[in-house]
Amino acid sequence: MKRTFALMGTLLALTLAIPAQAQFAKPEDAIKYRKASYSVMAAHFGRLGAMANGRAPYDAKIAAENAELVAVMSKLPWAAYGEGTDKGDTRAKPEIWKESAKFKEAADKMQAEIVKLNVAAKAGNLDALKAAFGPAAASCKACHDNFRKD
Amino acid sequence: MKRTFALMGTLLALTLAIPAQAQFAKPEDAIKYRKASYSVMAAHFGRLGAMANGRAPYDAKIAAENAELVAVMSKLPWAAYGEGTDKGDTRAKPEIWKESAKFKEAADKMQAEIVKLNVAAKAGNLDALKAAFGPAAASCKACHDNFRKD
Repeated sequence: MKRTFALMGTLLALTLAIPAQAQFAKPEDAIKYRKASYSVMAAHFGRLGAMANGRAPYDAKIAAENAELVAVMSKLPWAAYGEGTDKGDTRAKPEIWKESAKFKEAADKMQAEIVKLNVAAKAGNLDALKAAFGPAAASCKACHDNFRKD
Repeated sequence: MKRTFALMGTLLALTLAIPAQAQFAKPEDAIKYRKASYSVMAAHFGRLGAMANGRAPYDAKIAAENAELVAVMSKLPWAAYGEGTDKGDTRAKPEIWKESAKFKEAADKMQAEIVKLNVAAKAGNLDALKAAFGPAAASCKACHDNFRKD
């Protein structure tokens, strides 16, 4: 089992183009890091959602800043699914490693939608933000539904 | 006491130039966010430290990428020290709110050192990185020593 996960970890690392250089000293460091990057991303994504859904006043500058941060954060978690990070203080499902191509597809989809959201936010009008927010949120949800425990 | 903290929260928000718009629904959301932003920052800062201290091979591109992320993250936590965030799952000392000018000074100092570190990392040579890393690390430590519980 350990060897299987080691192999999967390597495979996933290759699939996700993780640098060969070890990025985390311990698996729990990687888990903490990916959760932290999702937390920061979610906070800024939530502010865009509040504007898109009319719960907060639209402010083009604040929208652009938040979207830029979401775009930066959206690139970070993927390097932190290496070997040994399937256990511990995590809601990650085994499917992340068992179906790594499908996971990568979902991760890529999310990042692509966030790129669109970032472009839309910088366009400086609420309708563009609204149009891009839904598909971006759906790409988050799709990954949560398939790869995260409740 | 509650009113005192409310006033301090307002003062701190003004001092730190937090947008009037509420950024966090609950104090615990703010605490989670600031801890997450520090975690992401620390991971990338640690990679620069490994290069600066010879524990990892120097790679100019990787150094520049990590320094840029540290610079982005260094701006984030300060908006998350608002009212009610002095209690709960946090190691924040009361001095953050009691001595808010001193806390702001420490936060500003850290961000200034990180700007220098980012410039140094982008210069593309290890000596520049080494020279900037020490003062940046010291600016982190100064704040931890004065404003974070062990």
